[in-house]
Amino acid sequence: MTEPVFWIAPIAAIVAMIFAWRFYKEMQAEDEGNEKMRTIGGHVRTGAMAYLRQQYKIMLVVFAVVAGLFAYLAYGLGIQNVWLPVTFVFGGFFSALAGYFGMQTATRASTRTTAAAQTSLAKALRISFRSGAVMGLVVVGLGLANLVFWFILVDLLTPGDAIDGARLVLVTTTVLTFSMGASLQALFARVGGGIYTKAADVGADLVGKVEAGIPEDDPRNPAVIADNVGDNVGDVAGMGADLFESYCGSILAASALGAAAYVAEPTMQLKAVVAPLAIAGVGILLSVLGVYMVKTREGADQRELLHALSRGINVSAALIVVAAAGVLWLLGIDNTWGIWAAVVTGLVTGIIIGRSTEYFTSPSYRPTRSIARAAEGGAATTVIAGIGVGMLSSIPPVVAVCAGTMLAFLFASGFDVAQMGQGLYGVAIAAVGMLSTLGITLASDAYGPIADNAGGNAEMSGLGPEVRERTDALDSLGNTTAATGKGFAIGSAALTALALIASYVEVIRIDLIAAGITTLVLPDGASVATAEASLLQFMAYYNVTLLNPVVLIALFLGAMVAFAFSGLTVLAVGRAAQLMVDEVRRQFHDNPHILRGKADPDYERCVAISTVGAQREMILPSVIAIAAPVLVGLLFGVAGVVGLLVGGLATGFALAVFLSNAGGAWDNAKKHIEAGHHGGKNSVAHRASVIGDTIGDPFKDTSGPSLNILIKLMSIVAIVMTGVTVSFSLL
Amino acid sequence: MTEPVFWIAPIAAIVAMIFAWRFYKEMQAEDEGNEKMRTIGGHVRTGAMAYLRQQYKIMLVVFAVVAGLFAYLAYGLGIQNVWLPVTFVFGGFFSALAGYFGMQTATRASTRTTAAAQTSLAKALRISFRSGAVMGLVVVGLGLANLVFWFILVDLLTPGDAIDGARLVLVTTTVLTFSMGASLQALFARVGGGIYTKAADVGADLVGKVEAGIPEDDPRNPAVIADNVGDNVGDVAGMGADLFESYCGSILAASALGAAAYVAEPTMQLKAVVAPLAIAGVGILLSVLGVYMVKTREGADQRELLHALSRGINVSAALIVVAAAGVLWLLGIDNTWGIWAAVVTGLVTGIIIGRSTEYFTSPSYRPTRSIARAAEGGAATTVIAGIGVGMLSSIPPVVAVCAGTMLAFLFASGFDVAQMGQGLYGVAIAAVGMLSTLGITLASDAYGPIADNAGGNAEMSGLGPEVRERTDALDSLGNTTAATGKGFAIGSAALTALALIASYVEVIRIDLIAAGITTLVLPDGASVATAEASLLQFMAYYNVTLLNPVVLIALFLGAMVAFAFSGLTVLAVGRAAQLMVDEVRRQFHDNPHILRGKADPDYERCVAISTVGAQREMILPSVIAIAAPVLVGLLFGVAGVVGLLVGGLATGFALAVFLSNAGGAWDNAKKHIEAGHHGGKNSVAHRASVIGDTIGDPFKDTSGPSLNILIKLMSIVAIVMTGVTVSFSLL
Repeated sequence: MTEPVFWIAPIAAIVAMIFAWRFYKEMQAEDEGNEKMRTIGGHVRTGAMAYLRQQYKIMLVVFAVVAGLFAYLAYGLGIQNVWLPVTFVFGGFFSALAGYFGMQTATRASTRTTAAAQTSLAKALRISFRSGAVMGLVVVGLGLANLVFWFILVDLLTPGDAIDGARLVLVTTTVLTFSMGASLQALFARVGGGIYTKAADVGADLVGKVEAGIPEDDPRNPAVIADNVGDNVGDVAGMGADLFESYCGSILAASALGAAAYVAEPTMQLKAVVAPLAIAGVGILLSVLGVYMVKTREGADQRELLHALSRGINVSAALIVVAAAGVLWLLGIDNTWGIWAAVVTGLVTGIIIGRSTEYFTSPSYRPTRSIARAAEGGAATTVIAGIGVGMLSSIPPVVAVCAGTMLAFLFASGFDVAQMGQGLYGVAIAAVGMLSTLGITLASDAYGPIADNAGGNAEMSGLGPEVRERTDALDSLGNTTAATGKGFAIGSAALTALALIASYVEVIRIDLIAAGITTLVLPDGASVATAEASLLQFMAYYNVTLLNPVVLIALFLGAMVAFAFSGLTVLAVGRAAQLMVDEVRRQFHDNPHILRGKADPDYERCVAISTVGAQREMILPSVIAIAAPVLVGLLFGVAGVVGLLVGGLATGFALAVFLSNAGGAWDNAKKHIEAGHHGGKNSVAHRASVIGDTIGDPFKDTSGPSLNILIKLMSIVAIVMTGVTVSFSLL
Repeated sequence: MTEPVFWIAPIAAIVAMIFAWRFYKEMQAEDEGNEKMRTIGGHVRTGAMAYLRQQYKIMLVVFAVVAGLFAYLAYGLGIQNVWLPVTFVFGGFFSALAGYFGMQTATRASTRTTAAAQTSLAKALRISFRSGAVMGLVVVGLGLANLVFWFILVDLLTPGDAIDGARLVLVTTTVLTFSMGASLQALFARVGGGIYTKAADVGADLVGKVEAGIPEDDPRNPAVIADNVGDNVGDVAGMGADLFESYCGSILAASALGAAAYVAEPTMQLKAVVAPLAIAGVGILLSVLGVYMVKTREGADQRELLHALSRGINVSAALIVVAAAGVLWLLGIDNTWGIWAAVVTGLVTGIIIGRSTEYFTSPSYRPTRSIARAAEGGAATTVIAGIGVGMLSSIPPVVAVCAGTMLAFLFASGFDVAQMGQGLYGVAIAAVGMLSTLGITLASDAYGPIADNAGGNAEMSGLGPEVRERTDALDSLGNTTAATGKGFAIGSAALTALALIASYVEVIRIDLIAAGITTLVLPDGASVATAEASLLQFMAYYNVTLLNPVVLIALFLGAMVAFAFSGLTVLAVGRAAQLMVDEVRRQFHDNPHILRGKADPDYERCVAISTVGAQREMILPSVIAIAAPVLVGLLFGVAGVVGLLVGGLATGFALAVFLSNAGGAWDNAKKHIEAGHHGGKNSVAHRASVIGDTIGDPFKDTSGPSLNILIKLMSIVAIVMTGVTVSFSLL
């Protein structure tokens, strides 16, 4: 890589790992508390590792089969990129590795956070937040390090002249296939993890709280460890894999689109490819700085705690705005300020989505309060209110993404709509900008389950009320950041998917050339070289217009896939939870000593049941997500695939926001009532709000986040299957 | 009209009115029962008329304002079709008139059905079904008569040669504006009616059944009349206006697309314009025949009753398949069998959607039974199950519409995908085919509330159990047909909206020519005459490709509008129901004699409250539905509008199916439990299922059906505002 600015990326990746290691070591050096605390923490850690082992076992099989298939397509039939089988495996492996490190850290950190909370709130916050930062930094560090590695390797091994424009398009679209592995692993972590966590949660609540009448986090409940494991599985490993995919996908899509947009100007082209990597790099460095800004004083209240967290994120974001300008200026890229404005647009879009999520799901604002008030009329009225509010809550994120997309397009294209290539590069760069703070935003997500588990540990270990009060404060803070984090994850998934869809056509171009189709005959009879066809000409060649029935149909199917996928994941939680309910009932029945606290329940069995249930239940939705773009590609060709992806994205995005926010709002409406409003605990309103919260559980922690994966996975599957689509499609 | 086959349409329209009049007279001649029955029937009739009066009053104002605006645009600025202000008013007036006749008949028929049920099930079925047929035949009769009238008038008054191809395009696109009035009136009837009916229903249940502990349909409940009125308002007037719009819209869109597709061959062009009118005509004649086939023996069970109804519809449909072939053969249209196959495709698609709706919402099948079983675990599990099943239920209708669209396109284009004009004509013709049985399918929808009200009347009048048993049998049959009818309404709305979107571009063409833009310069520099540009060239001119950011953004916004509109209508029911709850509580409190049965409650006040609440609550969603296409047109131009419409349609269709089927399934799951399963009445499962049913009420009777209006109204607003879009759009 002859562009010096490029080296910001590998340096930043190494810095991320060094600080991740440092935060891990700092945490390990802390006191782990008394024996009871350690035992409980050990159960959770063992459970989490058991889950991961099982997931990795199945992944190994699936990855082996898919890699074999890719190898056959690439080496046997010669219709796929030869790098695909290798990059695919690496993408999956490193995403899984990041999840492994994150879980190891999180499960170790929670007991230490509990121990610290015995004496100091500030210290407990520092331990838990910096442990969360391990996940954040490992994700961005491993992600960026891999991309850098592949760029260098593929660049070295691709024959041809360094300043041959078409060559860099080939390099970037090749490295793009790395996303496929990350995406498939994210499917396991997010969909499987989402089903796991809610099956354990609902199962533990239904038998423990409702039937046996024991409190939450009671060690007599056999599912309690599975429930605690679930928090880590969902919000650490699941969220991490989801954002690992968005992070890598957006950078890679931006590089590929940059290479394509500037194909005629090789020097500018290289700068366009390097820019997203360099911006991601400075984002990492400033995220590390941000982590150090998160600290609080003893006895801080919720507002102060939230302020401490926000300070870290806001300072990082503000500095990135400045640093990105510097990087782009150093690069000397054309239209420097336009590209910079696209980066800032992405950052601002992310912040707006986060704020909107907070508005719709926090009990400090009207929407959630109206849901709490509706609970006075019973379960039906509060559920109706939550669904109405959830649907309305899709307005600000969708409008923000639309405005962000349009502005980024206009900025990067120099307000010339005909410059579609450069405009779409701007959209991808905006996604990179949004995700540039990921190191620290993911830290505040992964922090949540650590604090939550710390509270559970304090409860189970029977620590004093002042300890529980401190862990409660941290837990409550985690709930707020979790809601914001979900909004951020959805918004970045939507923007990443958009960038991936735009790159799809560039990959098709490469495959057409590889298949020997060097000239395209357009509908009006004109001919154009495949390598030089503009995006508009590609659209005309494939008739990707909205009146083409193939495009319309595929769009309808895309919308339907989003609903079907959500329906399946919602029902999956119900079935997996039923298995857990049966097991907990069986343990209580077979050994009455458990409920009397005289015998330990069999935690491992519950963990195993949730694990197996989740793995089985994720099969059908996963098959749909992977098969849809392949089948539509075979039946309807390129026009159909683009229609499917856009339809799935438009509907899936709005649906994901609806599901996540409705779930988050019900959860907080319940908490609002528990805080003493509308009759408080055990009132009619409270019972109604518990029903709303239970309905919201699979909405917000399974189906909603799983849709993030669906929209990205469908796009990346389409991208890696272009060879098959080009070779075998019927239309 | 020089094409003799054309005259089938006016003859059929007259036949429809004659039989409607005849069925009405027959019903009027029947015994109306004892005084109590007549009094109760009178209350419902008075309430229904009070509702209609209020709705028509507001409509008058809105129509005057909008017509004035159209007149200004057409005569003042000269940028709109000069016929628009007139056709608009007629479309609204005749849709409202059909609703008025239908309500007059339905409210009179229910007491007579009750009276007949005292002695005979067969007679009660005949009275109620034939009274429902009045609505069905008035809708198709008035609809078709109007279209025929406008075709003749506009044809006569449009200058130019009869065999000038461009002239017939102008005539058909002009008459298309008739849909705007029908669509705006449908908005009032369907959205306002949907809010009315559920506000009354939920309000009556919450205070009457839950708080005061009096049974359903008890005359002491002040909201009971409003509830009965609501059934008529929703399922007679609302459903009728919805399908009046689909019926007219699909015929008009097919004519406009036919004129455009065959613009170069004037004789064939006229045949293509006449074909949809003639097919609708034979559909009416055979629907009348079908009505006469609906009869049953005394003591028939549910299966036999359903069989009697199905026989009427199936015979009509089968005969239409044959008759359509005859009509098209008589016309001598090009590609006769291709067009015929498109008609049949539409019919079959409608049947598949109806069957799928039945499968997902009938307690005879697994989905609804699984929801009933989940009720054993409480409200949360049954709600989760219903939402999962509802989401999955979008698969068959969407796939059916996709397959139907593709096949109709291929058949009509002679399997030549490049013949987009003829293919899209085939899609519109398929919509006409689906709606050709409307005379009888709408009869079976409007029959539902008559039977329901008859049961209510029997209950309130204190008639014997054998009467109630007969009315219950008829009511239960009505529930099945209502579910199927809803699926049919959604499917036909989707196909009609698709046809309208396709016609949009043809209207744009007319407006461009009117604005003096006679040549289009395409992106590749070539020029083409506006009058002769192919659809593909139009798409290229406006860059309506899926990678154009404007199209993408508008698609996202379309998906979001569908969710926002649903959210608003769901919340509207909650608020309007609250007004009713307050009023019923007030009456019970102010006059304790009411609950003791010693004083009549003030029914009129409840009717008025529900009416006013509904009218107020429908404002915001209505404004969104109308403003969205106008604003997107002004901001983003033609490409944006097409994106918005397609995004709204794809998401709205799947969302409507989800909402309607989830609601229908919860309703029937409750009935299944009440029939003695899972513990029967007053069990835990029953209480949970009541919550599910209440949540489903606004889903299935307000938001779901309102989405039908949204997707059609946005399309027709876009069509009538083309002049404004062409003249003022920013992009």
